[in-house]
Amino acid sequence: MRALRLREWKSEPALVEVPDPTPGPGQVVVRIGGAGACHSDLHLMDEFEPGTMPWNPPFTLGHENAGWVHALGDGVTGLSVGQPVAVFGAWGCGTCARCRLGIDPYCENPSAAPVPSGGGGLGLDGGMAEFELVPDARHVVPLPEGLDPAQAAPLTDAGLTPYHAVRRSWPKLPPGSTAVVIGVGGLGHVGVQILKATTAARVIAVDTRAEALRLAEECGADRTVTSGPTAAEEIRDATGGRGADVVLDFVGADSTLALGVAAARTVGDLTIVGIGGGTVGVSFFSVPYEVSIATTYWGSRPELVEVLDLGARGLVRPSITTFALDDALDAYRQMRDGTLEGRAVIVP
Amino acid sequence: MRALRLREWKSEPALVEVPDPTPGPGQVVVRIGGAGACHSDLHLMDEFEPGTMPWNPPFTLGHENAGWVHALGDGVTGLSVGQPVAVFGAWGCGTCARCRLGIDPYCENPSAAPVPSGGGGLGLDGGMAEFELVPDARHVVPLPEGLDPAQAAPLTDAGLTPYHAVRRSWPKLPPGSTAVVIGVGGLGHVGVQILKATTAARVIAVDTRAEALRLAEECGADRTVTSGPTAAEEIRDATGGRGADVVLDFVGADSTLALGVAAARTVGDLTIVGIGGGTVGVSFFSVPYEVSIATTYWGSRPELVEVLDLGARGLVRPSITTFALDDALDAYRQMRDGTLEGRAVIVP
Amino acid sequence: MRALRLREWKSEPALVEVPDPTPGPGQVVVRIGGAGACHSDLHLMDEFEPGTMPWNPPFTLGHENAGWVHALGDGVTGLSVGQPVAVFGAWGCGTCARCRLGIDPYCENPSAAPVPSGGGGLGLDGGMAEFELVPDARHVVPLPEGLDPAQAAPLTDAGLTPYHAVRRSWPKLPPGSTAVVIGVGGLGHVGVQILKATTAARVIAVDTRAEALRLAEECGADRTVTSGPTAAEEIRDATGGRGADVVLDFVGADSTLALGVAAARTVGDLTIVGIGGGTVGVSFFSVPYEVSIATTYWGSRPELVEVLDLGARGLVRPSITTFALDDALDAYRQMRDGTLEGRAVIVP
Amino acid sequence: MRALRLREWKSEPALVEVPDPTPGPGQVVVRIGGAGACHSDLHLMDEFEPGTMPWNPPFTLGHENAGWVHALGDGVTGLSVGQPVAVFGAWGCGTCARCRLGIDPYCENPSAAPVPSGGGGLGLDGGMAEFELVPDARHVVPLPEGLDPAQAAPLTDAGLTPYHAVRRSWPKLPPGSTAVVIGVGGLGHVGVQILKATTAARVIAVDTRAEALRLAEECGADRTVTSGPTAAEEIRDATGGRGADVVLDFVGADSTLALGVAAARTVGDLTIVGIGGGTVGVSFFSVPYEVSIATTYWGSRPELVEVLDLGARGLVRPSITTFALDDALDAYRQMRDGTLEGRAVIVP
Repeated sequence: MRALRLREWKSEPALVEVPDPTPGPGQVVVRIGGAGACHSDLHLMDEFEPGTMPWNPPFTLGHENAGWVHALGDGVTGLSVGQPVAVFGAWGCGTCARCRLGIDPYCENPSAAPVPSGGGGLGLDGGMAEFELVPDARHVVPLPEGLDPAQAAPLTDAGLTPYHAVRRSWPKLPPGSTAVVIGVGGLGHVGVQILKATTAARVIAVDTRAEALRLAEECGADRTVTSGPTAAEEIRDATGGRGADVVLDFVGADSTLALGVAAARTVGDLTIVGIGGGTVGVSFFSVPYEVSIATTYWGSRPELVEVLDLGARGLVRPSITTFALDDALDAYRQMRDGTLEGRAVIVP
Repeated sequence: MRALRLREWKSEPALVEVPDPTPGPGQVVVRIGGAGACHSDLHLMDEFEPGTMPWNPPFTLGHENAGWVHALGDGVTGLSVGQPVAVFGAWGCGTCARCRLGIDPYCENPSAAPVPSGGGGLGLDGGMAEFELVPDARHVVPLPEGLDPAQAAPLTDAGLTPYHAVRRSWPKLPPGSTAVVIGVGGLGHVGVQILKATTAARVIAVDTRAEALRLAEECGADRTVTSGPTAAEEIRDATGGRGADVVLDFVGADSTLALGVAAARTVGDLTIVGIGGGTVGVSFFSVPYEVSIATTYWGSRPELVEVLDLGARGLVRPSITTFALDDALDAYRQMRDGTLEGRAVIVP
Repeated sequence: MRALRLREWKSEPALVEVPDPTPGPGQVVVRIGGAGACHSDLHLMDEFEPGTMPWNPPFTLGHENAGWVHALGDGVTGLSVGQPVAVFGAWGCGTCARCRLGIDPYCENPSAAPVPSGGGGLGLDGGMAEFELVPDARHVVPLPEGLDPAQAAPLTDAGLTPYHAVRRSWPKLPPGSTAVVIGVGGLGHVGVQILKATTAARVIAVDTRAEALRLAEECGADRTVTSGPTAAEEIRDATGGRGADVVLDFVGADSTLALGVAAARTVGDLTIVGIGGGTVGVSFFSVPYEVSIATTYWGSRPELVEVLDLGARGLVRPSITTFALDDALDAYRQMRDGTLEGRAVIVP
Repeated sequence: MRALRLREWKSEPALVEVPDPTPGPGQVVVRIGGAGACHSDLHLMDEFEPGTMPWNPPFTLGHENAGWVHALGDGVTGLSVGQPVAVFGAWGCGTCARCRLGIDPYCENPSAAPVPSGGGGLGLDGGMAEFELVPDARHVVPLPEGLDPAQAAPLTDAGLTPYHAVRRSWPKLPPGSTAVVIGVGGLGHVGVQILKATTAARVIAVDTRAEALRLAEECGADRTVTSGPTAAEEIRDATGGRGADVVLDFVGADSTLALGVAAARTVGDLTIVGIGGGTVGVSFFSVPYEVSIATTYWGSRPELVEVLDLGARGLVRPSITTFALDDALDAYRQMRDGTLEGRAVIVP
């Protein structure tokens, strides 16, 4: 089969011929129906060096994958050939307390995982190919009716990541509360959709770009605020002076983190999702009392089941542009150029 | 009556004669049976200046108070004269969402409180006197059987503050988990007691001082670690490499916050209770995934009821030394000199 | 002023002249802008006898009230004359652990309440009059912008009761879950609205009446099932055999409770809101494992604040018909005859 | 190897020779170090008929098992030969939402399980033999240091079952609350230990037998009440009239369930663990408001990890009597005669 492979660090991936995978005991081969192209793939190609990650090329790209069960290894139950499925992309050791509950991104024994802190498209062969070998059937999640693999693929990361971040804050988002979404890009606009679908909180979207704020409104944001020196004050004003119960920072820069702290209500949540490299200094005196500041990374397998349900019912709907496998490099080019509309999904 | 009053910033308090208070509608006068002397009182005397706080002297010191109901204002129900009571020390506006649930320290409308962000002994007359005027009966909490006012007084702050901090983390402290207490002083040693009484978590106590670690062991700590460069590694080793599910920092210095981050397990809690003035830089990459970093300040009225129950049953027992009102200045002197054993409680 | 008063058990209420109320310390007089007429008022008129309740006539009817602050008693803070407000209708002792958190319907010291287990319109003078005396300012809840008293009045009971019932089950209602609403009447149809506004659960509405099922669909129900012998099976089929994560029974008859048990998923909730007088036998073998069966009664003050927010934003909107105070008896007549559309609200 | 097998319904088991098991892919063979004998085994021998359960003899008895890993099937990771382990005894389909979280007793697809609603010793070969074949490695739980297999075996059921029941109620058991344990037998006395180890609730133990109440006191019960007509009143008196926040009924008879309802506080929990065959009628009027009545059955795999930690630290310590495999029938005889002290553990 053909596969889009990263062959070494700091290089362009190439479409090459590789052997079809076959499943060992407990494994599954998925015929790919959609493989999302993610900004983090650009980091893999452009920035990483030996030692950045605990794994190295070569491997096939693509960590947002869905398709149909193609072949089942010995001992796999609960799946059948031809069934449409999504692939949970983070592959942990499978036996630590975190993995047992399906939160493989927080695997506590990474040296026992297929690769440490990785998955398909992240150190191991991913979904930008006709087939993907999934090393454990537990990562294969049946698609609900009404969701095809091309739509499902980006939900496994661009859907799951904001979903996990929002879900941690549900108890703080009853009616009357306010959630602030900073950064209405590929993950942030899905975050707005998830907040609107799963809570009755008011949603305030913050971005520097007018078109991003328009997208936020289309996704249901109750109010938009242009990023800048008055943003925190506007949020305080919009919340009767109390501040936002929950701030989700999908950028993660110094300035957005500072805004998050300035805009948060006591006992609120400030969740850092974006890997913008920023830092915020936390002290007893610098943050409103008992604001919980935490990063989140990706999400859990049971949460993926829930996101897929939202997707199947149209409550979460990342906008996508599909590309043939032959055109995958075009997709990344458009992503680099900023001309891509929505999420690129490679459909082999 | 006589009262120990702070008459101006940067001065020693003085024992002076003041009129007996009388309760207005909805108010209560408490005859003091114990008034705890707190390190923060030293800050009031020594360091604060006009503008540091939104209130100023003169006022009677003492924000950890218990005694007996002496007189009830019009309309007060549910209390009777002579009844032993503790005084919940944080006095908010009474009508914001936080105050409605008894978490006055997080009052969202401080300008409508008796004084903003204060209470008896903190901008208003406190308990180092024969009587204290409590401006709203809701702050008066009946003592359970088996707890006398002198024992109860320090529970209202030195008990309630660590209790609130521990309680936020209960869901993360099932059997098999580990809690780290950094700083085994006046609040920290009570924190160890509370952890042991209310959870089955292993408790690791960290301090620089050998006698503090001995105190931690007496309070039930399962293990002690001397503060220093290897402390984080020792904690990781003691937890099978996973880290501590919960870290309670009762110091709040740069070094202890850094230790907290280094010792925490993914999805754990790092709670900053101590006002040591330290700062920790938080970024997507610097803290284990989804560790919740938050400050806590004091506690809520319902939680005070729970702490008093622990006190009455001997499950929490801050060590105290009692002083007559005439000797209150001695108590502060011993506190300054570091010769005080346990908490000083003034018994008028 | 004029007031619609129940003068004795088993009698029609009458519109009579009574003195205007004046507020004592801590009390508030509200000028009524809307007083909802509730089915339970018919029970008061028709069925109750001395001894049924721990209180007796005469009193003014109306326990769903909103209006404007008219006069404030001594010591009341946080409210101003003319301010639009709703009245939290359950008036407990104010000092037990339940009342402290605003869940007066579960007051644990009813003998210390104004009347035991009652409130305005339930043993004490209610809102079917020009003015209502509220015995404690804590029961007076400011209206959010965009909600007038006539709309707000039914939210204090017909909104709050289903809201409390739904809120207890939020943790069991993530995407992919199913909530069943049995009985789409005055409370049930609001329950459907609340489920849709605050969760992403699928909602299945069950009723015997086609028009009730149509109303459920207008309120957003994803599916309707006609009550009857196959209802439980239809619900199981619609949930992939698993059953409903949450069943809210707004009828409370033997048959609906049996349906609830038959339709519930393991670890689900079956909440009994309706006072239809039914009983269900619970044993280790008769109910799916760990289904939590519980009644709920009315709701809490903080929850009322949340319901009013939903009402102000149009997310919950009980349909109402307004009547002048002169026509209040007509409203009850139409209610008895079944010709009333929506909730009757008396507007003096 | 030799195994104690139930060969047909309504018969005595027999010690017979059977082939040693060998593990298939993903499976594990455990060398048994302890196999608990449970009262429910007597039901299997004495009362069940074809059709009572969805499985039938012959099978080896013993569903409370621990030992050492003897052989690993293909693809098993995270375990090593010789490692001491406990066997999680409920074996579900492995792929439904419940099994994914390790709560196999609530498996939603039992027809896809090894046997429906069973496990080793319950339809499949159990641990009363030299070796046990465990059909999926996920059921094999490493023992913590300090716990040998004979001690660990009863924790997998007689420990896990009350643990799960207590754990559901943790949020209702803060200091000041009261838990009632009805029935201080094999599970109930462990329930008392678990309550004391994991909460600061007061524990009231109820039983008809004086020696059971003595055992409860040894396990830490704060108070004992003899079962009978005044028991509910005694519990109300002991709780200031409020009732018990949590009632755990380890008997499950009509009378104990009635006591549970009569003794429960509003918003409390009444958990039915005992399979005494009783029924309680639940209506809007018969149960204190919002008491959650639920059955629980066994527990989850992550909870077993937690119970084993309590066992290793001596915080939970079911009393046991060991028997050789040759004497296993003696153990059951003593159990039938009521002469057995503590839990019988067969040590092959």
